[in-house]
Amino acid sequence: MSQRQLHLNAFLLTSGHHVAAWRHPDAQADAGLNFAHFKRLAQTAERGKFDGVFFADGVAVWDYPAEVIGRSGQIGQFEPLTLLSALSTVTEHIGLIATASTTYNEPYHLARKFASIDHLSGGRAGWNLVTSATDAEARNFNREAHLDHAVRYERAREFYNVVTALWDSWDDDAFIRDKQSGQFFDATRLHPTHHKGEHFSVRGPLNIPRPVQGHPVVVQAGSSEAGRELAAQTAEVIFTAQQTLEDAQAFYADVKSRLARYGRTRDALKILPGISPIIGRTEAEAQDKYAGLQALIDPHIGVALLSGQLGFDLSAYPLDGPLPEVPETNGHKSRRALVIDLARRDGLTIRQLALRVASARGHWTVVGTPTAIADQLELWFREGGADGFNVMPPVLPTGLDDFVDLVVPELQRRGLFRTEYQGTTLREHLGLPRPASRHARPQAIAA
Amino acid sequence: MSQRQLHLNAFLLTSGHHVAAWRHPDAQADAGLNFAHFKRLAQTAERGKFDGVFFADGVAVWDYPAEVIGRSGQIGQFEPLTLLSALSTVTEHIGLIATASTTYNEPYHLARKFASIDHLSGGRAGWNLVTSATDAEARNFNREAHLDHAVRYERAREFYNVVTALWDSWDDDAFIRDKQSGQFFDATRLHPTHHKGEHFSVRGPLNIPRPVQGHPVVVQAGSSEAGRELAAQTAEVIFTAQQTLEDAQAFYADVKSRLARYGRTRDALKILPGISPIIGRTEAEAQDKYAGLQALIDPHIGVALLSGQLGFDLSAYPLDGPLPEVPETNGHKSRRALVIDLARRDGLTIRQLALRVASARGHWTVVGTPTAIADQLELWFREGGADGFNVMPPVLPTGLDDFVDLVVPELQRRGLFRTEYQGTTLREHLGLPRPASRHARPQAIAA
Repeated sequence: MSQRQLHLNAFLLTSGHHVAAWRHPDAQADAGLNFAHFKRLAQTAERGKFDGVFFADGVAVWDYPAEVIGRSGQIGQFEPLTLLSALSTVTEHIGLIATASTTYNEPYHLARKFASIDHLSGGRAGWNLVTSATDAEARNFNREAHLDHAVRYERAREFYNVVTALWDSWDDDAFIRDKQSGQFFDATRLHPTHHKGEHFSVRGPLNIPRPVQGHPVVVQAGSSEAGRELAAQTAEVIFTAQQTLEDAQAFYADVKSRLARYGRTRDALKILPGISPIIGRTEAEAQDKYAGLQALIDPHIGVALLSGQLGFDLSAYPLDGPLPEVPETNGHKSRRALVIDLARRDGLTIRQLALRVASARGHWTVVGTPTAIADQLELWFREGGADGFNVMPPVLPTGLDDFVDLVVPELQRRGLFRTEYQGTTLREHLGLPRPASRHARPQAIAA
Repeated sequence: MSQRQLHLNAFLLTSGHHVAAWRHPDAQADAGLNFAHFKRLAQTAERGKFDGVFFADGVAVWDYPAEVIGRSGQIGQFEPLTLLSALSTVTEHIGLIATASTTYNEPYHLARKFASIDHLSGGRAGWNLVTSATDAEARNFNREAHLDHAVRYERAREFYNVVTALWDSWDDDAFIRDKQSGQFFDATRLHPTHHKGEHFSVRGPLNIPRPVQGHPVVVQAGSSEAGRELAAQTAEVIFTAQQTLEDAQAFYADVKSRLARYGRTRDALKILPGISPIIGRTEAEAQDKYAGLQALIDPHIGVALLSGQLGFDLSAYPLDGPLPEVPETNGHKSRRALVIDLARRDGLTIRQLALRVASARGHWTVVGTPTAIADQLELWFREGGADGFNVMPPVLPTGLDDFVDLVVPELQRRGLFRTEYQGTTLREHLGLPRPASRHARPQAIAA
């Protein structure tokens, strides 16, 4: 396979990404706490030779209005690091990526947990590094309001520095374990971190050997100016929400152009836009599926979700009127801009925008046959919009089954996607090099 | 089985509790990162009908002297909550208990992770609540020195209050998940925590439904005055180190007598002393095993370990001289007192004390045949010294195999221990009631 290959990631969200997914006849309404469900999904994605599975996260119950909150099916689910650890035992090849915030965690705990999952899984862990931008989360961690955007990103950068330094605490060959001599490890190959910075003081070393992958794969999803710059410096995969090829190309070109200033090649960072595929064996079947799903949306839920994305309460505005001017907030800037652009571009009412956003939270939704969907993926991939995709099935498990059974074979026929795993680690699936330790001796660097 | 039953817990520590375990021919030297090893141990303990398996924890590499540290085989292992999550998928009945510190964690994260493990395992999670008492740990979490004993315990008590309140965020019947009506949960059965205290402000609610057990089982191991009082108020299981039946009886009577002042019955808290059994089919075989293990100890390691337990560096004192006066420290008080008492009582030199402590870190070590060991366990159990035992095999996996194959059947023959699991949760194995939510409505309390 000399042809450039695309990368596929399965973003698994309870009963699916569509806001009303849990009400669909195919859905497991109790998906959030159903381990058999997630086991099946991870095994299906592995059968489809996906690079990884991915779990989002937040550390609060969102502040939706009282009449709306009880109708949201995406509340109350497994904590992602415990779920990832459990999935490591029922899968063999697929990467295991989870979100964890730099805002309300300590770097020692996170470095250690991801290292542990990397060891449990034989080198399949990935960390989606995010900042937390809601007051609901702040209030669970001794604050009244969340941190300013700039401070969150400063903290995130320092957090990243500490975590990667902790992962390098031990040289790869530090552990000798020679029963005869009694030498368990070589203490000269152990490196305390001695970090003292603005946000953290962490002496180290980490109390777990260097991860199988050197460093678990670092994923990011921020698209603001600060988010792009942090990603260009530190991320190896970006998940991004892009609605059109043109926007995707602009984002792709911008982020890739930033890599050189950090001494990184264009290949060192893979850009994976989200896609929510609604798949039918015929175009009509696909459109029917989509219509059936949209019909399940309660408009109150849709508007509440939209308000959450904008950081601005729309419940007092007429449902069938235009989107009003939305003031700047201190929340997630990039998601907000995406949604506003979508409304302006397509001239949508609040109701129409709410329905569009509800189907995959502002991500690219493609309704069509397997061939039509593969055409779109190939186009974005070949035309500088993507290195691969973060697949967000509207309903689980059937949406993932459809993608694996119908779209993956089409991509494979076109020579765009692997038919077998070539490596054993997530890093190898993604074509990313294993990072040398910052303490590596000259011969280790040369090796 | 109308007879009172004892409880058994398997304390799993890398290649075993003996400090030189990893050098033993039976040991897995790489045990700390060997999931197959832990899977086998958990399944063996489950075959032996143990109540639970247990993992200790600390959040640092200990500050041993440079010439000693590389010879310690208990450094560099899986993080316990990730390991517990993985083990939940390869076991069906046995309880899964891990240690997590109240000193350097946030209650929201811990409440959530233990709730998640409780859901993953169908109600088998237990939390060993500890305080962190080393400067090595403090330095990984933005401090130069660890917190004072009194402050640690104040923080621990508040931490417990917040965690248990978070576990009660959702009523047991809050999630309706009615696809037809679109009602996912009943928002009137959701209770924010609104905690504002000395150490934490946590609004809640927790973003995961109430645990299967109501609350995961709360375990503690502190034996100081503050530790006993906190346990009497909050713990459901105590692990304790006791060297003699007399000491065990005194501890047992003292802790049980404290329960009434918190409105708790004597049965609400199970006391499990640690025992490190060295099992031979004959007395001579057992003694040979013990001698063989002790011969593997490097005296430098032994003295370093002893120094760590005492919080006082003994390396400058003559190996074959007496234990000097050891000054008070701000560390773990109870473990220190146990070791000093042992030296004074038996008139041990530093070398002798180091060897004794090295075999099971100051825990009760019993060398003998299965019958002799069962006799000891029965004696402590019947004579008011224990409700059961925390079994600490000197070498793993063989030490656990021996206990399950040789000692458990003897206890079963005497009618002291279950031959099959009767319940499905750790709480049921331990004979502990499922706690009602603090928000339970009258009819729920009566049920």
